[in-house]
Amino acid sequence: MTETETHMRRALTLAKRGRAWVAPNPMVGAVVVKNGKIVAEGYHRRFGGPHAEVDALERAGDEARGADLYVNLEPCCHYGKTPPCVDRIIKAGVKKVYAAMRDPNPKVNGQGFEILRKAGIEVEVGVLEEDACDLNLPYLKKASTGWTWITLKIAQSIDGRIASVTGHSQWITSKPARRYAHMMRASHDGCLVGSGTVIADDPQLTVRHVPGRNPVRIILDTEFQIPESAKVLNSPKDAPTWVFGAPEDGNLPSWAGKENVDVTICPRDETGRVSLLEVMKRVSRRGVGSLMVEGGSRVWTAFLDRRMVDKVEVMIAPMIIGHGINAIHDLGVQTVNESVMLDKMRWRRVGPDLHVAARVIYKENGDVHRPD
Amino acid sequence: MTETETHMRRALTLAKRGRAWVAPNPMVGAVVVKNGKIVAEGYHRRFGGPHAEVDALERAGDEARGADLYVNLEPCCHYGKTPPCVDRIIKAGVKKVYAAMRDPNPKVNGQGFEILRKAGIEVEVGVLEEDACDLNLPYLKKASTGWTWITLKIAQSIDGRIASVTGHSQWITSKPARRYAHMMRASHDGCLVGSGTVIADDPQLTVRHVPGRNPVRIILDTEFQIPESAKVLNSPKDAPTWVFGAPEDGNLPSWAGKENVDVTICPRDETGRVSLLEVMKRVSRRGVGSLMVEGGSRVWTAFLDRRMVDKVEVMIAPMIIGHGINAIHDLGVQTVNESVMLDKMRWRRVGPDLHVAARVIYKENGDVHRPD
Repeated sequence: MTETETHMRRALTLAKRGRAWVAPNPMVGAVVVKNGKIVAEGYHRRFGGPHAEVDALERAGDEARGADLYVNLEPCCHYGKTPPCVDRIIKAGVKKVYAAMRDPNPKVNGQGFEILRKAGIEVEVGVLEEDACDLNLPYLKKASTGWTWITLKIAQSIDGRIASVTGHSQWITSKPARRYAHMMRASHDGCLVGSGTVIADDPQLTVRHVPGRNPVRIILDTEFQIPESAKVLNSPKDAPTWVFGAPEDGNLPSWAGKENVDVTICPRDETGRVSLLEVMKRVSRRGVGSLMVEGGSRVWTAFLDRRMVDKVEVMIAPMIIGHGINAIHDLGVQTVNESVMLDKMRWRRVGPDLHVAARVIYKENGDVHRPD
Repeated sequence: MTETETHMRRALTLAKRGRAWVAPNPMVGAVVVKNGKIVAEGYHRRFGGPHAEVDALERAGDEARGADLYVNLEPCCHYGKTPPCVDRIIKAGVKKVYAAMRDPNPKVNGQGFEILRKAGIEVEVGVLEEDACDLNLPYLKKASTGWTWITLKIAQSIDGRIASVTGHSQWITSKPARRYAHMMRASHDGCLVGSGTVIADDPQLTVRHVPGRNPVRIILDTEFQIPESAKVLNSPKDAPTWVFGAPEDGNLPSWAGKENVDVTICPRDETGRVSLLEVMKRVSRRGVGSLMVEGGSRVWTAFLDRRMVDKVEVMIAPMIIGHGINAIHDLGVQTVNESVMLDKMRWRRVGPDLHVAARVIYKENGDVHRPD
C-alpha cells in the first residue's frame, strides 16, 4: 500500500463510523496530512451535522495551511444543510486534495473538483476508488439515477423457510442476528413490510437494540387492512409511517388522519395489488436513498420478480424446518439459468447464525452460464 | 502449544492425507521423536496397507529404539488386514507412546495400551483428544455403536431449492462444488440415492473428478423401478451396487443377477416404502462405516424425520430459484423449536458457492431454546 492509499484507507475507516447516522447522506471520512503525518481526522457524524472535510479542518486549525486533505468522496459545492465544503477547503489553505471518487449527485458531479482547481488547489481523484464505491453504493445509486437502493433482508432456516407450516417463526434467528437487523435498519433510510407482516407480527420497525436512527416505515397495504391499533400507526414520535394502498373502493382508511401517518393511494398492477413501481417512484421522489425490505415472502418475491432488488441479506439459522413457509415464491423460473443470480456473495458469523450478503444480477434471455 | 501437542498436531496433519483412501478404517498419522526431534513420519495411506505406526517405524529404522511415538489413535492389538501394531511397537524398542485417544473398537478399546504398558512402554493418552475425535467421527460412531455414520449432502440455491418447478437442476452448483462432492464421496464408504434420482439423472455415483476410492453404491427402490440400463447396474468394475426394495409382489427384479449388483428385499415401513431402519441395519452390518446420502429430497427428508442423520453438508449456490423443488419436505414441525437443530456450523467458499457443514442435534419435546 502506498502512503496515499494508507491515508485514504484511514478516511474510509473513519467514514464507516457514520453508518447508522448519516443516511440519506453518504458516509464520508477525511484526514489532514502534513509532512507525511496525519494532523487531524474527521467524519460525517450524523445527517444535518458538519461534513467530514469541515470536521477534519476544524480540528486541524492552522495546521491545515499547506496540508493535504484526503476524502473518500468529492467535496460538495452546493448549499444543503450546511455550506459548501469547497469554500471551507479553500479558506483553510489546503495545498492538495486527494479524493477517492467523483460525487455523481448532479449538484456536484465534478464541479467540486473544478472549483478547487480554479482556486489553485491540486486535485487527485481515484485513490481506492473501488472501496469508496462499495462503501456508498446506495447513495451512489440514488445520486446517479434518482432511484432508491433496495435491500431484501431475509431471516430463514438453512432450507429456506421463514416459518413453520403453522406460521410460527419466533425465533428462527438468534438475538445477535436480531440486533444485527436493527443495525441494518439504522443504516437504511426506509424499511418496508407488507400488510400481512403488520397483521401477523405487529412490528414497531424501529431501531431499539443498537444506537441509530429510525428509518421511515413504509407499509404496502392494497386494501387498507391493517388495524387502527397497529404499532406503526400509533408511534408518531418514532418515525413517519407511509402507507401505500390501492383499495377497490378508492377510499382512504379511517386511520388516515393519524399523526405522522401518510396514506397514499396508488394505481394497481396486473396482479391486483398496489403497484410496486408506482410506490417506488413515490418513495424515490420523497428522498429515500435506501430501503430495506423486511418481508413477508410475497413482498420479497414481488420485488425480485420486478427486477428491483440491488442486494439481498440473508440471515441463515442453523436449523432445518422442512415443510413450512418458503422465503421466496414463484419467480417464473423454468430452468436453473433463469434464476436470480447473486454476485459478490460474502458471509460472516453473527451469533450462531450465518449472515450472507450478495449483490443481485438480473440476466435475461436464459443464456447466462454460471461462473466456475 | 506444548512440544507434545506440536508433535500430535503433526500426526493429525499426516493422518488427513489418507482421507479419500482409508475408509472404513480411521485416518491415522504417526511421528517418531528422538531428543525432541522428529526422526520419522508415517500415516495410513490406504485401506489394506500398513498402519500409520508401522509406516513411521519402518522409516525410523534403528532410530526408533528409545524414541517416543506419537499417534492419534490407540494402536491396534488384533489381526486385521495387517498384524497388530503393538507387536511392531514393542519390537522397535519404543520408549513411550503418546496417543490422542482410545480406539472404541471392541477388539481394541484399551487393550492396545495395556499390552504396551505390560511390555514396559510408557503410555500417555489424551493429547489433543478433541481434535482426534473430530477427525474420525464416522469411524468412532461405527466402532462404538456398530451403526453407520450418515451424512446428508445437499446442493441447493440460497432459498433452499434443488431444482426449478420443471425439475431442471443442471447445474445449480459450480464445477468446483461438484469436484468437492466427489472428494466427499471418496471419503465415505457408501453413497445412497433414491430410485427417483436414478431414474431422473442416471448418475454413476463414482469418484471421477478427484483421485480417490469409489464408495459402495446404495439405491432405495421400493418397487424395483429403476431401469435395467441404469449406469449403476452396468458398471461392475467401478464398485458394488446394492439395491434395497420391498416390492408389493415380493419378486426380485429382472436385473437382480447382474455382476456386482446385490438386490435385497426388506420390510416396508408405515409409509409404504422400504424401511430405512431395516436398510440401515443391513448396511451397518455389512461394514459400511460412513454413508453419504445424495438425495433426492424425499430420501433426505425421510432420513431426517427418522432421526438418523449425523451431519449435513449443504452446498449453497449464489442464486434464487423461487418456486421449485424444496430440498427438504415435511418434518412435522409445527413450531420453530421443533425443527432439526444444527450445531457446530462451519462454512467455506468452494468456487463461487458456499459450503456449510453442521452436526445434527435432535431435540424432542419442543422445550429447547435456541442458543444465543
